[in-house]
Amino acid sequence: MFYHSSKLQYEVRVEKPNPLFAKMLQQAIGGVEGEIRVAMQYFFQAMGARGPVKYRDLLIATATEELSHIEFLGHAVALNLEKAPTSMQEEAAKDPVVNAILGGMNPRHILSSGLSAMPVNSNGVPFDMSHIYATGNIGADMLANATAEAGGRVLAERLYNMTDDPGMKDMLSFLIARDTMHQQQWLAVIEELGGLEAALPIPNSVPESHEATKHSYVFLNTSLDKPAPEGRWTSGPSLDGKAKFSQAKAEPMGQEPALGKARPDSAAQKEQM
Amino acid sequence: MFYHSSKLQYEVRVEKPNPLFAKMLQQAIGGVEGEIRVAMQYFFQAMGARGPVKYRDLLIATATEELSHIEFLGHAVALNLEKAPTSMQEEAAKDPVVNAILGGMNPRHILSSGLSAMPVNSNGVPFDMSHIYATGNIGADMLANATAEAGGRVLAERLYNMTDDPGMKDMLSFLIARDTMHQQQWLAVIEELGGLEAALPIPNSVPESHEATKHSYVFLNTSLDKPAPEGRWTSGPSLDGKAKFSQAKAEPMGQEPALGKARPDSAAQKEQM
Amino acid sequence: MFYHSSKLQYEVRVEKPNPLFAKMLQQAIGGVEGEIRVAMQYFFQAMGARGPVKYRDLLIATATEELSHIEFLGHAVALNLEKAPTSMQEEAAKDPVVNAILGGMNPRHILSSGLSAMPVNSNGVPFDMSHIYATGNIGADMLANATAEAGGRVLAERLYNMTDDPGMKDMLSFLIARDTMHQQQWLAVIEELGGLEAALPIPNSVPESHEATKHSYVFLNTSLDKPAPEGRWTSGPSLDGKAKFSQAKAEPMGQEPALGKARPDSAAQKEQM
Amino acid sequence: MFYHSSKLQYEVRVEKPNPLFAKMLQQAIGGVEGEIRVAMQYFFQAMGARGPVKYRDLLIATATEELSHIEFLGHAVALNLEKAPTSMQEEAAKDPVVNAILGGMNPRHILSSGLSAMPVNSNGVPFDMSHIYATGNIGADMLANATAEAGGRVLAERLYNMTDDPGMKDMLSFLIARDTMHQQQWLAVIEELGGLEAALPIPNSVPESHEATKHSYVFLNTSLDKPAPEGRWTSGPSLDGKAKFSQAKAEPMGQEPALGKARPDSAAQKEQM
Amino acid sequence: MFYHSSKLQYEVRVEKPNPLFAKMLQQAIGGVEGEIRVAMQYFFQAMGARGPVKYRDLLIATATEELSHIEFLGHAVALNLEKAPTSMQEEAAKDPVVNAILGGMNPRHILSSGLSAMPVNSNGVPFDMSHIYATGNIGADMLANATAEAGGRVLAERLYNMTDDPGMKDMLSFLIARDTMHQQQWLAVIEELGGLEAALPIPNSVPESHEATKHSYVFLNTSLDKPAPEGRWTSGPSLDGKAKFSQAKAEPMGQEPALGKARPDSAAQKEQM
Amino acid sequence: MFYHSSKLQYEVRVEKPNPLFAKMLQQAIGGVEGEIRVAMQYFFQAMGARGPVKYRDLLIATATEELSHIEFLGHAVALNLEKAPTSMQEEAAKDPVVNAILGGMNPRHILSSGLSAMPVNSNGVPFDMSHIYATGNIGADMLANATAEAGGRVLAERLYNMTDDPGMKDMLSFLIARDTMHQQQWLAVIEELGGLEAALPIPNSVPESHEATKHSYVFLNTSLDKPAPEGRWTSGPSLDGKAKFSQAKAEPMGQEPALGKARPDSAAQKEQM
Repeated sequence: MFYHSSKLQYEVRVEKPNPLFAKMLQQAIGGVEGEIRVAMQYFFQAMGARGPVKYRDLLIATATEELSHIEFLGHAVALNLEKAPTSMQEEAAKDPVVNAILGGMNPRHILSSGLSAMPVNSNGVPFDMSHIYATGNIGADMLANATAEAGGRVLAERLYNMTDDPGMKDMLSFLIARDTMHQQQWLAVIEELGGLEAALPIPNSVPESHEATKHSYVFLNTSLDKPAPEGRWTSGPSLDGKAKFSQAKAEPMGQEPALGKARPDSAAQKEQM
Repeated sequence: MFYHSSKLQYEVRVEKPNPLFAKMLQQAIGGVEGEIRVAMQYFFQAMGARGPVKYRDLLIATATEELSHIEFLGHAVALNLEKAPTSMQEEAAKDPVVNAILGGMNPRHILSSGLSAMPVNSNGVPFDMSHIYATGNIGADMLANATAEAGGRVLAERLYNMTDDPGMKDMLSFLIARDTMHQQQWLAVIEELGGLEAALPIPNSVPESHEATKHSYVFLNTSLDKPAPEGRWTSGPSLDGKAKFSQAKAEPMGQEPALGKARPDSAAQKEQM
Repeated sequence: MFYHSSKLQYEVRVEKPNPLFAKMLQQAIGGVEGEIRVAMQYFFQAMGARGPVKYRDLLIATATEELSHIEFLGHAVALNLEKAPTSMQEEAAKDPVVNAILGGMNPRHILSSGLSAMPVNSNGVPFDMSHIYATGNIGADMLANATAEAGGRVLAERLYNMTDDPGMKDMLSFLIARDTMHQQQWLAVIEELGGLEAALPIPNSVPESHEATKHSYVFLNTSLDKPAPEGRWTSGPSLDGKAKFSQAKAEPMGQEPALGKARPDSAAQKEQM
Repeated sequence: MFYHSSKLQYEVRVEKPNPLFAKMLQQAIGGVEGEIRVAMQYFFQAMGARGPVKYRDLLIATATEELSHIEFLGHAVALNLEKAPTSMQEEAAKDPVVNAILGGMNPRHILSSGLSAMPVNSNGVPFDMSHIYATGNIGADMLANATAEAGGRVLAERLYNMTDDPGMKDMLSFLIARDTMHQQQWLAVIEELGGLEAALPIPNSVPESHEATKHSYVFLNTSLDKPAPEGRWTSGPSLDGKAKFSQAKAEPMGQEPALGKARPDSAAQKEQM
Repeated sequence: MFYHSSKLQYEVRVEKPNPLFAKMLQQAIGGVEGEIRVAMQYFFQAMGARGPVKYRDLLIATATEELSHIEFLGHAVALNLEKAPTSMQEEAAKDPVVNAILGGMNPRHILSSGLSAMPVNSNGVPFDMSHIYATGNIGADMLANATAEAGGRVLAERLYNMTDDPGMKDMLSFLIARDTMHQQQWLAVIEELGGLEAALPIPNSVPESHEATKHSYVFLNTSLDKPAPEGRWTSGPSLDGKAKFSQAKAEPMGQEPALGKARPDSAAQKEQM
Repeated sequence: MFYHSSKLQYEVRVEKPNPLFAKMLQQAIGGVEGEIRVAMQYFFQAMGARGPVKYRDLLIATATEELSHIEFLGHAVALNLEKAPTSMQEEAAKDPVVNAILGGMNPRHILSSGLSAMPVNSNGVPFDMSHIYATGNIGADMLANATAEAGGRVLAERLYNMTDDPGMKDMLSFLIARDTMHQQQWLAVIEELGGLEAALPIPNSVPESHEATKHSYVFLNTSLDKPAPEGRWTSGPSLDGKAKFSQAKAEPMGQEPALGKARPDSAAQKEQM
């Protein structure tokens, strides 16, 4: 069950409100790299967590923190929208900077939200929950979480580079730091469970008889005019310690697919029947 | 540039066509764990690859292989739909098995595709390209790719468990094997670039001054009634080798957010102004 | 800032796990009538709340409660999926009940989530955040919230009628009760601000000069062959106390729209230019 | 059945075509606050209307009017796009105003529609029909309709404030007026059916035995550090006249959710089994 | 401007209500082959029609007819849902036919719409307006319209084959007939404008200097192991009468794409810079 | 099965990188008129192709070519993003041109992709696979393909008009040419199968008894105040050679739809029961 405190997790200051930056910040709220995604992803993983209870506790604790991130980012968007131009009156239209702001900002920050944050990305596309990855497999989920936090930290750094508002830079430096921790904590779960060698291939519970293992450790090159790119993946021991990597040219092993005629009752053209 | 061979990468046999299994297989084509996703993800990552060329070559080679996976899975769906019931005529309606199949299969396999594969998941929801993760950061991308392949292998194993058609089991054992390799090859890129310690935190190019590092290695517990779940993430060296993990109770560090009155021109209610 | 307690807000018991009911319950989690929607809607309204602070407090308090509703519903879904069939092996296929369950349940409850809740509706369509209504106008928002809770209570009653599991009925009776309260509390805000007469028309801050008031209180009948349906809306005082309702036949007041020729550089057909 | 007259419901004049305003106007066509939404919402409610026939007649009459609103707004968008720049040729690129317009307008107004209206919002996101709320419960539906019209009138006022084109202001003053009427007519249905007291809680047909009524009239405060916000919703008679409002601190009433081990056949990691 | 008559365009009779067929019929309402799509597509094309006025009149007349098709199909869905099972009570659960219906029907027909039509397809996926094709080019639009009607007639025939309800067959025979006419009328526009030879290539207003015409009439074979499929498209005069078809093996004409190093400020990994 | 060559199908040169044009070009990648759409559409049609094998070969050959178009367009986007501004630092903010570019470009080209192509359209909306039309009917599919290529060529010409970069114009002239060929080749299939007269009405396999043919060749005018627009579709032989076109005023042939009372268990309001 959830509770709320009236203060933000981190302080939000905006010295120079900037509606273009408000648009950019939306990526950190409603983008696939954003906070709604991680909050909901960890929450749904927690609700489906089977196995040792402490991983469920870890997930729900961090899901809860991410809700607080949405909250202070939402406040940052609203503060950046203070003083945004809301009209195309003539004197404004003569000023190319005002013009560019009106054209460049998210129009729904005026039209739909009345100058506050929305659950959309920087293009104004609403977040959709198909991005909540929760497989029931802790290995797959921990990788998904580390991925989400890696994308989140890439985004936070790009936002940091974009602004010169000291308040925004300060807030983003906190986000960058938390994303550091979160990347590590999800990968630390894998390490605690024996590390990559024990975890791979995910799921590590597949019976050997289900896998055509002769295809499991060979890099297939589909290029017609370049040799296979060589690296850690073309020779040496596999990461799960079970085999050696090799490489081969990709070749068809199957038939030419042919479906025959269409059924009479299938509303195809007569010429197909 | 792409070319095509007329044969499938792997042989597809269906001994007992099953339209319910055709619906299930769609998850491997048009689900977020499916082949359209990985094909397009590796393709877009390749098109944006900056840095050593061999990683671009690796990406495009595997993108190309994944297109071939779509192709044989699409053939498997069509073969499973041969003999699907297309009518609710009375004698059929009396047979509860036929009834259950008609109710349970994807209706669009009859109505929209005329008994062949569609770019949708097992609920019939079309795949959308917001799931193509390509950040321009090779660390984030490799994690995203390993995640995709982990989800894919989890799915393939669940499909394997679901069917008792020997042809389908054989085809899925090949997919399970390729997903093993692909998981490993993406993680092998990280290993080649110095391993997790060098890669983390992603992006590893963030200047130290951009990060509030005192928050970077501490697990924050937001639980009101349970202690922090202890593990590899609460003590010991951090995975990037730069610090030690610790834990703390989450506490507000920010202000109570307050936006003041609504602007007169913002179409709020008078009572808000 | 958010916190979490380890116990559920309400007890969840499932005596007869039923994967079809698990699918149905998803509507209450990820449907437009569901809990993700209200949690996020109240949260975003709170973040944009301007005017008296107590309405923001009200919003965030209830947003927090709704997060707890997601949590216990998620647990209910997982419990209903215990014992779900995960295979089409031959003996199962002979049993029409098993067949109907396998065809009727959400396939992604097996394939994607590994037998737990997902942020999707009962068709398996992911929730998307375009349904978060937060206009910055407290009148519009309170109506939107009452609407959401009305839809939610309609849904909860339909789910109650559908199941005969006593644990599920008990949990739903709690949801029905909370939806009662939430409907009333949002409408109570309107009452506190002067009631409908003062609130209407929303926004009540539109200057009179912006409105062609001769069209503001007349019901327009567009029917060619039926008289206007008469009722409270065709005569008597308007609900805002400013005018009297009347009715009229709808008539065109504008021109025939005509755009002229296509531009030479617009890639139209020559015949349009 | 529908018919069409060749004239617009309201006159559309554009004195100073402005492609940025064309983009903004799209919100009134294809936004969630827009006319496609209300036209289709009232249409689907009419098709599912059970009970007194006059409400169906009311719904279909207004659905028909809203189709006419789409039509004149679509004409307004096209007129605002006359003279839009369609090229980035060099002299244009030197003019920052032209530049800002090209960057700020909806690119698909040039690229996809050839300078006319599209069924998208002001971000270019296509309208989707998940926003058509039609529950079969007239109380829930009337609230949904009043909500839609409240959002619509908020939007129309914001568009009015944004433009200084007299033709556009005139057209919008008509929309503001019609939204006034439509808000009132839907709420008038509730009044005719006995008013809020009779209608609440929606649905008013829930048997008392289905509701845990001790939770039905109490505001739950989830805040850790603020008292419950007091107001009409914390004391006094409930809006349905059945009880008195009260308040309480939210407390867990349920168990700690625990799912146990993962099934052997569920493709979880071995460590979860 | 639109008007409405109280009678349906075509009679709707359902002798044996069937909730599975209700689900199927939704494809004809909210599917990409359905009536919402064509109604809105012709409507938006009409609003953007430039050039001879009669084509706009043709478009809006047929858009209006399609609205009437939505209306009678919506009624057909509601009639098919009369008597649908709404509960999983025990005696029902013992009957595999009831079970199959409950599992197979669209659950939202009970949960969300209260037994009436929704703007969704047969998988329950809401229609979205990205499917409204209106380019401003009458050639492209007429082909899009003929395509939509071809898909619609394929669907109507499949629905006809699926049902044995005489009322439903009668209604569908009307839809099949109207789709015949609509296919023809859109292609007749092309014929009236000079036929395919004059219309192609669409747009026929592209200046010759914009086209690398040596690539305009040659079929490129990308197959590695099969000769080009020969047919009307590999030899003989082109359909626009301007050239002769030929064939060639596809070959790269461009460079190896290489983007160089990542920018220092782009949050890539250091190894890419 | 697919293979890849390391060179692009066509040369890509960008002389004056322009991030606004990068945004525009996205329409040709991830727009409904774009290359992902045609690649996937032809691919799925090929996988479902029944009847003469050569049409499957034709489809897969061109699907493969379209993948190569995605590839060179993706490179063009990346090259146009070289030198894009990534910061709002003060000196930049003073320059209205820089400002306009920052506001006008796709923010996710910086924030999400790190300066490379994405599978989205020019509004940043991700492509979704609901646009893959593959009906199993070769007539419907060929029209859909010609439509897609007509839309594609319209788009390519508009992009050509928009840029003055010689490299981009050259690349687009190739796309215009290929779209010419592809339009023709799909229509040539119809011609080879007997031409429109034999193909219409699609599907041409509908038994006559399924169609209410008295409604199949009559244009219905739904206008209240204009005569039917006369043309090739109102008189003369029908395009399938089976009948003569005529026209009539649209009239209701059905009943007034009425659903009666709501069921007691349907959670409607009491007043509806």
